[in-house]
Amino acid sequence: MFNRVAIVGLGLIGSSIGLAIHNANAAQQILGYDPNKGMANHARKIGAIDQSCPLLADAVRGAEFVIVATPISRMRSLLQDIATIASPGTVITDVASTKAQIMSWAEEYLPTSVFFVGGHPILSTDTYDEGLATAALFKNCVYCLTPTKRTSSTALDTVMKLIEILDARVRFLEPAEHDGLVAGVNHMPFVISAILMNTVVGSPSWVDAAIVAKKSMYDMTRMSSNNPEVYRDICLSNSEALSRWLGEYISELSTFRDQLMLHDSKLIQTFNSSKKLREQWQATMDANQ
Amino acid sequence: MFNRVAIVGLGLIGSSIGLAIHNANAAQQILGYDPNKGMANHARKIGAIDQSCPLLADAVRGAEFVIVATPISRMRSLLQDIATIASPGTVITDVASTKAQIMSWAEEYLPTSVFFVGGHPILSTDTYDEGLATAALFKNCVYCLTPTKRTSSTALDTVMKLIEILDARVRFLEPAEHDGLVAGVNHMPFVISAILMNTVVGSPSWVDAAIVAKKSMYDMTRMSSNNPEVYRDICLSNSEALSRWLGEYISELSTFRDQLMLHDSKLIQTFNSSKKLREQWQATMDANQ
Repeated sequence: MFNRVAIVGLGLIGSSIGLAIHNANAAQQILGYDPNKGMANHARKIGAIDQSCPLLADAVRGAEFVIVATPISRMRSLLQDIATIASPGTVITDVASTKAQIMSWAEEYLPTSVFFVGGHPILSTDTYDEGLATAALFKNCVYCLTPTKRTSSTALDTVMKLIEILDARVRFLEPAEHDGLVAGVNHMPFVISAILMNTVVGSPSWVDAAIVAKKSMYDMTRMSSNNPEVYRDICLSNSEALSRWLGEYISELSTFRDQLMLHDSKLIQTFNSSKKLREQWQATMDANQ
Repeated sequence: MFNRVAIVGLGLIGSSIGLAIHNANAAQQILGYDPNKGMANHARKIGAIDQSCPLLADAVRGAEFVIVATPISRMRSLLQDIATIASPGTVITDVASTKAQIMSWAEEYLPTSVFFVGGHPILSTDTYDEGLATAALFKNCVYCLTPTKRTSSTALDTVMKLIEILDARVRFLEPAEHDGLVAGVNHMPFVISAILMNTVVGSPSWVDAAIVAKKSMYDMTRMSSNNPEVYRDICLSNSEALSRWLGEYISELSTFRDQLMLHDSKLIQTFNSSKKLREQWQATMDANQ
């Protein structure tokens, strides 16, 4: 199906995409590049790529389709590098958790002779362990694409073929809309979890408090064990949407705290509302299963 | 061991205590009282009590040991009622999630001829379904006792016998210390969960956001499905400690949000700290298993 595919970044996501393309026999050749030689070698050993290239240019030059699966912090300079290397007609996509900034970099740096389509596969859990790479990683997951007016429809078709190979479900969103949604349901919960951890588990009373902590405290702070660099990049790259959500969240918390200090029993409305919303969400999920 | 035990409130906790006493053959007679006849009958059917009393006085009068397992909102008037009913020498304990207010009510209302010991068994999960009552509910759980200078050591022995029967582990705390600890590790996480639910799932964008939500969002809002009345009572009864924790939490969130708006990459320190604290907590738990 594809002639030559290049995968740049061979962590969990890059390697899993490679395995899926390989298993589907969907490319003549899969080249891979990762500055970490160990990860590149691992990807080759498990069959995620046919060949590991020592230089980015060796992987990207002449590729029909370039899949960039690196941390957000490396995306800017990578797009600048790819701009000088990619052959005319190349389709480029990414998998980053935020989209507006990536899209603007792509539009700023890439020549009009290559075609960029922004993407973000939503994995059900956060993990970055390349050892867990599997062709089935994306099965049934939502794969967001954020085409703009400048996106080529042929390039879009190429990425949609990939999504079909991955057995994922495509979802089209505006880049800013995507970022606003994931800021609320993913990035803010991470921040809330991390700061709950710091406030309570970082307090001098924790030695005693640990003894009376319940499973709920453990569950609510689980996200805080995620990779700090990954989430720093996500937060900085999605600062506008995330700070908007956090502002609203802090405001609702403050209102609740004011009611609490006034011993206002109307604070139960907060709990009635959240219980109802949770039940509605649960019912929707049950109906979709 | 005990002569006559009275259990006031026959929900999950009251019924489970009854079952444990019954299974251990630790009382001549277990009388029960609950204003909800259905719950009282259920408790009798499963053997948690020998007899359901139509009036509080019938259960409490002549009992050697009274275990109060009702919602916090009913504790004040119950203690006032018990004060006029209980026979001299009776030991009274409770299982409420907050302790300072309960202790002050007990000291205010109960005559010096009866002996109160405040208690709080820490169940690993929140549930209030009396259908799940079991003698093993408290096995290995931490059972807080909050004796004060006025607490009789004989009465304390009585409650510690109960904790032995329940196969729980006793932990002595000052009432205010107890309330401060549970406010941080249990009550605040509930509030954080409920308000995350309202902010994100209650927003107009939720229909679209639900599609990109991950397991972490679902886990972090699980607590919000708990009983609103129970948590309203807990919050109002523990308002001082809880508002102190919330104040600190809001302050840390606001500091983070300020860094975010300034694109200050030092915000990673928040995530480095939370990851480290989480790993330390995990290591402690692994070591204790």
